Amino acid sequence: MAGLFVTLEGGDGAGKSTQSTLLADWLREAGRTVVTTREPGGTDLGVEIRHLVQHRRGHVAPRAEALLYAADRAHHVATLVRPALERGDVVLQDRYLDSSVAYQGAGRVLGTDEVRDLSLWAVDGLLPDLTILLDLDPAEGRRRMAARVDAPYDRLEEAPDDLHVRVRDQYLALAAAEPERFLVVDAAGSPDEIHAAVRARVAALLEG
Amino acid sequence: MAGLFVTLEGGDGAGKSTQSTLLADWLREAGRTVVTTREPGGTDLGVEIRHLVQHRRGHVAPRAEALLYAADRAHHVATLVRPALERGDVVLQDRYLDSSVAYQGAGRVLGTDEVRDLSLWAVDGLLPDLTILLDLDPAEGRRRMAARVDAPYDRLEEAPDDLHVRVRDQYLALAAAEPERFLVVDAAGSPDEIHAAVRARVAALLEG
Repeated sequence: MAGLFVTLEGGDGAGKSTQSTLLADWLREAGRTVVTTREPGGTDLGVEIRHLVQHRRGHVAPRAEALLYAADRAHHVATLVRPALERGDVVLQDRYLDSSVAYQGAGRVLGTDEVRDLSLWAVDGLLPDLTILLDLDPAEGRRRMAARVDAPYDRLEEAPDDLHVRVRDQYLALAAAEPERFLVVDAAGSPDEIHAAVRARVAALLEG
Repeated sequence: MAGLFVTLEGGDGAGKSTQSTLLADWLREAGRTVVTTREPGGTDLGVEIRHLVQHRRGHVAPRAEALLYAADRAHHVATLVRPALERGDVVLQDRYLDSSVAYQGAGRVLGTDEVRDLSLWAVDGLLPDLTILLDLDPAEGRRRMAARVDAPYDRLEEAPDDLHVRVRDQYLALAAAEPERFLVVDAAGSPDEIHAAVRARVAALLEG
């Protein structure tokens, strides 16, 4: 495919949205067509699925939850991401399959391998060209989130702190297993510092 | 598990609901506790998922559709079917994984093996003790459905006739591959004739 598929990963408060905006602006100035999107919820169907999973207060069985996230991902990739990549666009996506693997792995209910296999089936094997992991101490992420006045209710944000510590460990393990695909950035740095590191890696990819 | 898990399969109009009611009545008279249920839509979450899949007029990507059905199934089995079987109840269920395999296989978009694997992952391997296939010429099923005044809008019911012919062939192939699990009944017979055949097989299972 002619396009470039970049995903942003990390805990809440790590600065994924900020970095996505900075990177999109830079790419557009460089003349690229950029599609910014997110999971869950990057399509109309996905918004409805996201509502089912995240904002429903009743119990959702763990395998059902994993399958709903995978359904959102399948529809999103088939109807939005793949067509954009085939047009030659850059797709900047907030969260992708590494989120599912890290959060499910940290939750210790389902195995990381089966969650990864499920996601890969959903998207017919599509992996990002680059995954930017914004790595941050979960306590700092929580402080940043608490300072936001517009933060919506979210089941994951109510999860206990040690879950977030395990999520971070899972993310770092995923990055270590695929160093070619991942760029790990210390998200405690300033937005401009982080953007410079991201920009360098994306520029290298676009040249190669 | 102490209970008995019986599923009813077949095209629309084959008489699944009628046979489920007759079998449930007979089992209750014999002193068994019976749970009758259906997929998709056997739980509150399932009703919402079913609405997303069947009554949404927009396009749903094929893998997303398969994953949504699997999510409904996962939640239904985890929260309703398994607990009932563990209590020793008889569960009579209108449609289960064979529906997904038969309809997806007939649709020829996804492979039957991958759809079956997905369903089995969703339910952590739970197969029925008995699957009753009500086998009917699709033209006759369509005549019966057209005669109903209360039939709701349903995307599957709008599918072209040759799809239903392929669904029937898929069902018969599934039954041939697992003769121990399947009872194939000619659904052109009277409800009482069909019920007698079903009852004989269920009685044998309960005695064995």
